[in-house]
Formats: sequence, structure tokens, C-alpha cells
Amino acid sequence: MTSPLDWIREAASARADAGLTRRLVPTKAHDVVDLAGNDYLGLRHHPAVVAGAVAAVETYGTGAGASRLVTGTLDVHEELEAALAALTGAPSALVLSSGYAANLAALTTLADAGTLVVSDEHAHASLIDGCRLSRAAVSVSRHNDLEHVAELLARRDTPRAVVVAESVYSVLGDAAPVEDLVALTAEAGALLVVDEAHALGVVGPGGAGLVAAAGASGAEHVVVTTTLSKSLAAQGGVVLASPDVRDHLVNTARPFIYDTGLAPGSAGAALAALGVLREHPELPARLHANAARLAETCGVAAPDGAVMSVPMPGPHETVEAVERAAALGVRVGAFRPPSTPDGSSRLRITAHADHTDHDLDRACAVLAELVPSQA
Amino acid sequence: MTSPLDWIREAASARADAGLTRRLVPTKAHDVVDLAGNDYLGLRHHPAVVAGAVAAVETYGTGAGASRLVTGTLDVHEELEAALAALTGAPSALVLSSGYAANLAALTTLADAGTLVVSDEHAHASLIDGCRLSRAAVSVSRHNDLEHVAELLARRDTPRAVVVAESVYSVLGDAAPVEDLVALTAEAGALLVVDEAHALGVVGPGGAGLVAAAGASGAEHVVVTTTLSKSLAAQGGVVLASPDVRDHLVNTARPFIYDTGLAPGSAGAALAALGVLREHPELPARLHANAARLAETCGVAAPDGAVMSVPMPGPHETVEAVERAAALGVRVGAFRPPSTPDGSSRLRITAHADHTDHDLDRACAVLAELVPSQA
Repeated sequence: MTSPLDWIREAASARADAGLTRRLVPTKAHDVVDLAGNDYLGLRHHPAVVAGAVAAVETYGTGAGASRLVTGTLDVHEELEAALAALTGAPSALVLSSGYAANLAALTTLADAGTLVVSDEHAHASLIDGCRLSRAAVSVSRHNDLEHVAELLARRDTPRAVVVAESVYSVLGDAAPVEDLVALTAEAGALLVVDEAHALGVVGPGGAGLVAAAGASGAEHVVVTTTLSKSLAAQGGVVLASPDVRDHLVNTARPFIYDTGLAPGSAGAALAALGVLREHPELPARLHANAARLAETCGVAAPDGAVMSVPMPGPHETVEAVERAAALGVRVGAFRPPSTPDGSSRLRITAHADHTDHDLDRACAVLAELVPSQA
Repeated sequence: MTSPLDWIREAASARADAGLTRRLVPTKAHDVVDLAGNDYLGLRHHPAVVAGAVAAVETYGTGAGASRLVTGTLDVHEELEAALAALTGAPSALVLSSGYAANLAALTTLADAGTLVVSDEHAHASLIDGCRLSRAAVSVSRHNDLEHVAELLARRDTPRAVVVAESVYSVLGDAAPVEDLVALTAEAGALLVVDEAHALGVVGPGGAGLVAAAGASGAEHVVVTTTLSKSLAAQGGVVLASPDVRDHLVNTARPFIYDTGLAPGSAGAALAALGVLREHPELPARLHANAARLAETCGVAAPDGAVMSVPMPGPHETVEAVERAAALGVRVGAFRPPSTPDGSSRLRITAHADHTDHDLDRACAVLAELVPSQA
């Protein structure tokens, strides 16, 4: 007797044999040092951010209640969009329910069957899915290889082109040559979509990201996407672009039009987090100092952003290291296939601005034991 | 001098000429009767739901901080998943950051290049985008036409098949023949994916939806998706299915794996809304009584769920009616191309369980003036 679930069970059994089964385990609010999450500025429990979320829930309710185009646009969305534009220097901003949705919305509306998308080989899953959904022709460029990007653009036979990159990459944690990409795309008449998920609040002037650092925030051909769920300690995503691009998304982006507006509490939290960042411009520098110390212990270079990637021998060793660290009170992340761009297994370690010297002493003592000797 | 935004500006100008430009206007907390939003049970400002959101924010913070697979799974997610499974009778539940993400996750993992997807022609954009992303062959079936579904399934030359439907459709508001679809797919060895976004909290035993009403919640070949942003007054989505399907999504669904976990406040709000629904099983019946009265005034049949669709002559008349209603203190929705399955323009009117007789008196007086005479 066959079942339509047979192939799902076979896939599960193959995963188990390869040591690649993933399980959801609730994170408890223990006394641990968190080097796994993406709350880079440590604002999820900040009193002002919690107060921002609570005030928005009390004012606007627990949900937006409808699509942004029906009755789901609230003042808190517009305030948040203005604050995001102000931090990054972008001409306008459109907030969506997740960073994933922001990337789908940007790619599916800026690329179409008449577009060549040149996408960095380390681009995030949400960018890749956006490219797939767009029906554009997609060429994958070698990681951070400007010459390859230029070559692929030059070879195109489509009327339009879009180059896709992250400003700080999620797995390896390295930065893209944003300034060069901005110049290269301007020259080639292409749009540039840059995902700053791991850069906002972390790098650039006042945490404004690498597009701002490159002086390209106002450039008409540059579209920035990012998330509200990392440094801004909330949920949601945003597309930062010219008002024409924003109107284009409002009118044509299915992941925006056919989705309920961002929950007021998340919008209020992100807005408050932007306020904390404005009042504490020292937070990104503190994060980088913490990152440098962790990187030294792990024998890797100090990262461009907050993410360090530490190579491990294989998926089993990686899982074991994560479990040993947890037993010793330190939470680290694991990347195993298929989440790594190169098929390798790695520990993923993130620095946080709110870690104290005591936290780092503890973390470094544990990491020194776990990480394969660099000798 | 050409710009890569030229085509975007041309598209905007064509939209303006056709009277189809959409703009975002913040909804103010005026004294209006809301017949446009999808907060069907009227729980967005319910004290218990607000308290649920606030408590979760205070306990877990303003964001989940990471993917559910890293450190973003919290007790509140598991409690919410258990409560959703309990209400619907589903064997297990997986919560995602939006209903859109839930549909992408379900379709991209249950269908692949070896699958025929038979999708109802009125299926929601998120289901369609999920089909597109899945790389499956897609056949569109005539709306609610069982024979057509059976015919398309019988003709298939793929090893696997998935049938896609909504239990209550979002634009026309009509219900699918869920019991027949369950039987038909069982016989054909196909999976059935049913989106209950407009059914949860609205129809079925205790608001459990139409799959529960059909006695099919435990059926292995039935996968239910729904949103937490309508009746449950929050944000987020859920896939309700067998534990094997849940594990399959946890391990393979990119919109789940590569997205930050649902914000604790939204999870707490949805959990509290489920509690209110449990304690007030009369809410769906109150909603239906309100819907019946509105439907009568609009000269349309009483809806299967909460959504009424009132035909209008064209997009301009639709926008004008929405504006006149707003001026008179009643908020109604508009569907214009390309949001309507048949290219028509319609008023979209939603009933809410929390509307008082006074609210309905006001609403019906305005609607009677706006709706084209049925004579």
C-alpha cells in the first residue's frame, strides 16, 4: 500500500543516515552566553524596545488586521519607514512582514522575463527564491568577483539587468565590495539590489550599512533590502529605494499586496530600537571589539560584521561541538549542508554589543576547547 | 539618457491612466465601522489578547532573534503549535512568520518537478507563488469544479500529485467542497493542501475550519495552512499536518529555515486569541448573524464565511464608493484588477463578531446607498 507521504519518509531516512536531521529545540532563558542568535545589538530585552512594542500593541492592537493596501497601514508603519530612511539615507522605505518577503518583493518586481539577474553565489535563500519567482534569467557570479559580474553583464542579451549581493554575507560573514558594485552597475545600466540584513546596525556610519558607507544611499539604481529581526530586535523587512521603486512595489509586489501588514508590536519594537541606536552610536563599535576578541580565540580573522565562520571537520563534529558548548553554558550556531555555500560544516559565532567582559571570558574559555587547533 | 527605472515609470503611468494606481493611506482609530479588515472575531484590541502579546514580549523579548532552527524556537511557539493542533484536530502544527510563508513552505516542499499540482483558479497569490517556486507542473482547475480536478489528476504522468484549494475563498468568499476534495484526493493518491485563512475561527466546529468540519483533520494526505493574522488577530502562519510532514518542512522548507522565528508578541497574541475563542464558542455564530444582515442589505447571498463580494460597474466606481463610505464613517474594501480572479471590480465587505446592533444600523444605512440597485 503506497501513501503520498512515502517519498517524504524516504527523504527523512536518508537525512538521518547522513547525520543531517534538524530538530526544533526551544531556547530557554538560562544563564548562557548567546553566540548563536542575530540580536547583534542585544536589544530584544532592552526596556525602551520592550516599551515600544507594548505601546504599539496598546495603541494599534495586536495585528494590522488586513493588507497594507486595505486597512493595514498604520501610523506606526509610516513612522518606522521614515526612521529607516533617515538612518540609511534612503529616499524612501517600504516595510513588509519579513526580510524574506522584502527580498521576494524586490526581486519579483525589479526583474522579469526581460531581465538578466547576476546573483552572487553566496546570496541568501530568500534572494535566490526571489530570483526564481521573478522569471528572470539568472547567472550566478563567483563570490565577490567583480570581474565576473562585469563579464556576465557585458554578455547579456536582455534589455534589463539586476545585480544581487549581500553587503555582509550571512554564513561566512565577509563583506561585499559595495562601492565597486555601485559603480559597476551604474556604468552597465543595471539595478543593484543589496541585502543589508547582517549590516544594518552593525557597520557603516551610525550602523547605517555599507551602501550608506559607500555614499550610495540616494543612488536611483540602488535598492537596499534588510530585516528588522536582527539588529533591530523585532520582526519584519524593508525595501529602501527611490519613491518610484516604492510605488512600483506597492502596486505590483505580490508578497506585499497579498500579505497582512507587519504586526504593530514588531513595528513599534523596531522603531524603538532605531531610537536606541541613535542615542547610543557607540553600540556598533562595542560589537566590533567583542567580535575581535572572539575571532582571536577561534583563530579566524576579525569579521567585517558580527558573524564569524569557523570551519569544522564534518556535520557530526559540528553538532557535537554545539552540544558541548551548550552543556558549558555557551550557545553557538552550526551550519551544515545544505545551508553552507560550499557544502562544508562550520560553527557560526556571532558577536553581540551587550556581552560583558565576564560573558566573553566565559565564552572564550569554552571556544578555546571546542575549536579545532589552527596549528 | 535612459535609466534602469524607465520601465518602472512607464508602468506607473499606464496604471494611472487605467485608474488602477494604489496608494497607502494610514488607517486612523476613528469612530468608524470597519467592514474592510479581516479581524473577523474583533480580537485585535481584546484585553486578553493584548495581555497575551505584552506578556510574551516581556518574557521572551521583542523578537525571536534567530531562525527557529538556531535559537529562535521559544516555548511560546510550541504552546501556540499545540493550541492550534488542539483546535483544528490536526496531528501537529508548525508556525511560520506569515500565512504567505506557510503557503510557500508547504507547496515548495510537498511538490517538486515530479509532481502535478492541480490548483483552483481562485487560489490566493501565496499559493500560486508557492506552486511556481516548487518547480512542479501546474494545472489550473475551474473554480470549485470537482470533475475538472478529477480529470486533471487522472490525466497526469507524474509520480506525485497535489491538489490546492482554499476552504473559504478570499475574494468571492465562497466555500470549497472540502469533504469531496478529501475523498477525491485520497482515491487518486494525491495530497490535498487546503488554505483555511478565511475559515479558521469562522466556520466549522468551534471555529476549527472546514477540514475539521469534514472530519478530515487527522487524514495523512491532508495538509492545512492558515494565517494567524485574521481571526487570531496577530501575525504569522501555520502548517497543520502529520508529524512526518512537519519534520519534512523543518528540514527542507526554505521559507521556514531561512527566516527569523515569529515574533514572541505575535505568538502570544495568537495563543491568547485561541483562548478567547475556546471560552466564547458563540463568537463564530455572532459573526454569521452579522454577515447575514449585511448580505441582505447588499443584495447578495449570506456568505459561507465572513467575506461578501459585491459586484460594481468598474474600478473608478469602486474607488468612489469606498471613499463615500469612508466619509460616512464606514470602511469597506475594494477589489480591482489584478486582485480579482475574474478581472471584475467589487466591494469586499467583511462581517465581524464584535459589531453591535448600532454598528450594523450605521453600516447598513450607508451600504444601502452605495451598492448598485439589484433591481
